[in-house]
Amino acid sequence: MDPESYVVGVDYGTLSGRAVVVRVSDGVELGSAVLDYPHAVMDTTLAVTGEALPPEWALQVPADYVAVLQSAVPAAVADAGIDPSRVIGIGTDFTACTMIPVLSDGTPLNELPEYAGRPHAYVKLWRHHAAQAQADRINDLAFERDECWLPRYGGLISSEWEFAKGLQLLEEDRELYDRMDHWVEAADWIVWQLTGSYVRNACTAGYKGILQDGDYPSEAFLGALNRDFSRFALDKVAHEIGQLGASAGTLSAAAAAWTGLPEGIHVAVGNVDAHVTAPAAQAVNPGQMVAIMGTSTCHVMNSDRLAEVPGMCGVVDGGIIAGLYGYEAGQSGVGDIFAWFVNNQVPAGYVDEARALGRSVHEHLTELIKDQPVGGHGLVALDWHSGNRSVLVDHELSGLVLGTTLTTRPEEIYRALLEATAFGTRTIIETFNSSGVPVTEFIVAGGLLKNAFLMQTYSDILRLPISTIASEQGPALGAAIHAAVAAGAYPDVRAAGEKMGKLNKNVYVPNEASSTAYDELFAEYTRLHDYFGRGENDVMHRLKALKRRAAATNRTALVSA
Amino acid sequence: MDPESYVVGVDYGTLSGRAVVVRVSDGVELGSAVLDYPHAVMDTTLAVTGEALPPEWALQVPADYVAVLQSAVPAAVADAGIDPSRVIGIGTDFTACTMIPVLSDGTPLNELPEYAGRPHAYVKLWRHHAAQAQADRINDLAFERDECWLPRYGGLISSEWEFAKGLQLLEEDRELYDRMDHWVEAADWIVWQLTGSYVRNACTAGYKGILQDGDYPSEAFLGALNRDFSRFALDKVAHEIGQLGASAGTLSAAAAAWTGLPEGIHVAVGNVDAHVTAPAAQAVNPGQMVAIMGTSTCHVMNSDRLAEVPGMCGVVDGGIIAGLYGYEAGQSGVGDIFAWFVNNQVPAGYVDEARALGRSVHEHLTELIKDQPVGGHGLVALDWHSGNRSVLVDHELSGLVLGTTLTTRPEEIYRALLEATAFGTRTIIETFNSSGVPVTEFIVAGGLLKNAFLMQTYSDILRLPISTIASEQGPALGAAIHAAVAAGAYPDVRAAGEKMGKLNKNVYVPNEASSTAYDELFAEYTRLHDYFGRGENDVMHRLKALKRRAAATNRTALVSA
Repeated sequence: MDPESYVVGVDYGTLSGRAVVVRVSDGVELGSAVLDYPHAVMDTTLAVTGEALPPEWALQVPADYVAVLQSAVPAAVADAGIDPSRVIGIGTDFTACTMIPVLSDGTPLNELPEYAGRPHAYVKLWRHHAAQAQADRINDLAFERDECWLPRYGGLISSEWEFAKGLQLLEEDRELYDRMDHWVEAADWIVWQLTGSYVRNACTAGYKGILQDGDYPSEAFLGALNRDFSRFALDKVAHEIGQLGASAGTLSAAAAAWTGLPEGIHVAVGNVDAHVTAPAAQAVNPGQMVAIMGTSTCHVMNSDRLAEVPGMCGVVDGGIIAGLYGYEAGQSGVGDIFAWFVNNQVPAGYVDEARALGRSVHEHLTELIKDQPVGGHGLVALDWHSGNRSVLVDHELSGLVLGTTLTTRPEEIYRALLEATAFGTRTIIETFNSSGVPVTEFIVAGGLLKNAFLMQTYSDILRLPISTIASEQGPALGAAIHAAVAAGAYPDVRAAGEKMGKLNKNVYVPNEASSTAYDELFAEYTRLHDYFGRGENDVMHRLKALKRRAAATNRTALVSA
Repeated sequence: MDPESYVVGVDYGTLSGRAVVVRVSDGVELGSAVLDYPHAVMDTTLAVTGEALPPEWALQVPADYVAVLQSAVPAAVADAGIDPSRVIGIGTDFTACTMIPVLSDGTPLNELPEYAGRPHAYVKLWRHHAAQAQADRINDLAFERDECWLPRYGGLISSEWEFAKGLQLLEEDRELYDRMDHWVEAADWIVWQLTGSYVRNACTAGYKGILQDGDYPSEAFLGALNRDFSRFALDKVAHEIGQLGASAGTLSAAAAAWTGLPEGIHVAVGNVDAHVTAPAAQAVNPGQMVAIMGTSTCHVMNSDRLAEVPGMCGVVDGGIIAGLYGYEAGQSGVGDIFAWFVNNQVPAGYVDEARALGRSVHEHLTELIKDQPVGGHGLVALDWHSGNRSVLVDHELSGLVLGTTLTTRPEEIYRALLEATAFGTRTIIETFNSSGVPVTEFIVAGGLLKNAFLMQTYSDILRLPISTIASEQGPALGAAIHAAVAAGAYPDVRAAGEKMGKLNKNVYVPNEASSTAYDELFAEYTRLHDYFGRGENDVMHRLKALKRRAAATNRTALVSA
């Protein structure tokens, strides 16, 4: 293989886009650059008008994504110090489900002057949660009609996904809905900008677009939700599917001018941040579960078997790599629970001491508690501060800490929260194991892999060796791997990942004594998990309902005051 | 009544003794003085030898109590600016159960030179908890033999009380046990020092000494615990009983010299801090529950009926005032839970802001949260950080906070903890109500009555008006009231309390809307209370056992390292 050929991977995150230049022969990362989106996330007001947005909205501006191509890509090439003519392909990954209403030529509706002031003309970011009412109706109806695709999503369609957001658009801004020719994943729209033609990627079509075994939800189902929604799938969503790692086309003259890359190089089919990380971590074989651990955790795993795993986010044929069933699960709160604790529950003395020792508060708490024997804090926690995605799929659940005494110290509660997230992971893994798609390896990517104590705790609690990705830019590397495959440098994503991916194998192995002690705590976690999470005591639901009523009372009181 | 006659009340607390001079005719407090015990509490080492004490020990030095008579009493008289010859009586109250082994003349064993270095020769303070093993045996045997006195103590004898501590003395220092002529409550020993003769007060004899219907536990029962313990009650404990408010004798020449008070004035029978507060708060009628709310809460209430209230601390004929059944219950953690939270779970920003506003952190948290509608935090907590005294009588229970999310603020958790202690009180009151001794009024004494938001919360949650004692020295005032009765200035404690006690009546009344909302939260509390507290899920017990095992493992590891 030509040691002087390169690919570019572009990772579109929630707040910025990052381009990385990678050598095709061995995956060495030679240069990178980041552009923060000029409009970031619009979740309180619409930038162009200053109009206030309702609660739970989260919008973006499509032109910001193009700006990344114009800015970060050439900057990364410059940073790498390579000759851009040596670049043979470009690949991307994106947040999902992030949706754009466009005309037939790909023009986003917000770019039409007459619609610039209409919130529904903009990108609905993954974390736009204002379509919950629509999602509830979709779920109720699908359950009632026993729709065959529902179990493929663990029994629940998210408000974040294509159909809920599309139904919201129809019902709240009919003019825009009618004007829209395609309801497009941002993951595909950016590829469309690069190539000039629209290809829909198999990953988001499956996980977010309810495409199963070649079919979308039926006209009858959609029409029962809303008569005018019956042809939504056929008219606005359905499109030619591109497999992951395939070429979506070649770089257009316009995109070549933006990026400084050669016109005509291959552009990989669009992809998603979590899923693209699997080959970057050399973990695409059945049983290899990749956990991208940050504020939340996303789990992806391939299998050669199709199974229904209760509470998973979804299973999609070719959803991670072509030819295997890709499974996705998740924990909605992980690092953000630790951050909440540090910001809200740690006294000044700890912060001062951490500063004096040159540590972060997280590091300081970890140092203080890491040598305590398992169970020494007498605590068990439930990691549901941000609800529970897998396996309970219930965002009305909430957090719990049990066992505190007058001598309980903050670092003990912190550790109990770390452990709780590991117990949550073990619950997911055990569910996969008992559903016929066993997890045999656990591979970690994402920011939390830097906490060695956390990783060892996970290894002990999961009773699995833990390997860690050896790149700090996993998604961008994964996108670059797809670019190399699209460009024909490797026969498939697996082969490319083997050469270009980077993994530190079995960095952590379980300590049998710790694992045994943790088994006892996990049994307590499981009992509380089932008691509060499976309907025996719905106190968490009732408390949230009471909280909403109290807030409503308060608003009424304020208005009438 | 002579407007120029006075009494002195002396309140013996855990760390200091306080003397107050009170006008007999109207209860006006004219002067006071405090002496910190020179030896404070010996809970790590024995002062005289420097010998380390085992865990859970807590000793005191009897001479420190006499020093209060020599120092604080004359200082209080001087502070009041009265003529000491106008003092007609002196009364005392003490912590309980605080026990002293003495010779037949009242000399404490630690004052014999040959025993000065023997820990068991000293006062065992109420919070000496090293006789738990003995208490467990007493309880197991009493339950097995179905002893008729057991239900009078809510089903459980405490390790703090006379028999457990006495059995520990027998089994750990036989020589001292044999040498001891009386096992005396400090409440009675101090009166002995004042009068020169030993009278045993009805309050501690009943609550702490298992004296019921004129009998102590039988020789057969005690002999089954330990053959050599069979005559413990008869030989070491039993003594002439004095009713509360009666005269125990007159001030001896020696005590007159210590105190500067006239020889021959009446000395009231000994008493206990919580119980003596009832008349100081004008609350000695059936149904009037007095709660002394500080780090923990003690509840005392009279009734004309004898009932078995599950989980109470005890019921004693004449235990609060002569002629009525006195009931006692308690919550083992209240103010100390709030203090733990403030010290361990509140970030620097709050502390800085409180300081800038000139508030304590407690006041600041209260100000931040007091206007939130009931249930607005979405939380429910269990107030068991220090175990549960009434009604579960289980010190292996622990704290819980449920309902936290990533937007939960510290002041919200603080409020949930305040509410949890009120729910704990409501649980006690409902148990009294359903046992045939209904609570009709709630009167608060102790440091926490200063928190108006907490008081209003209690009123709303209990659905009872709350009255507050109008003295900051409730126990000392109560002791003074008993002195006035002993001196014959009033016919009985009730009459004296009506003139000398001080109460702000119905300062807080329930807000119906809040009460209704709190009913919902209380239902959640109760369900969790019963689930975790009544054996359905013994996770708290198991976690404490695991914690002890972990600590033991750690000690072993440290020793072998």
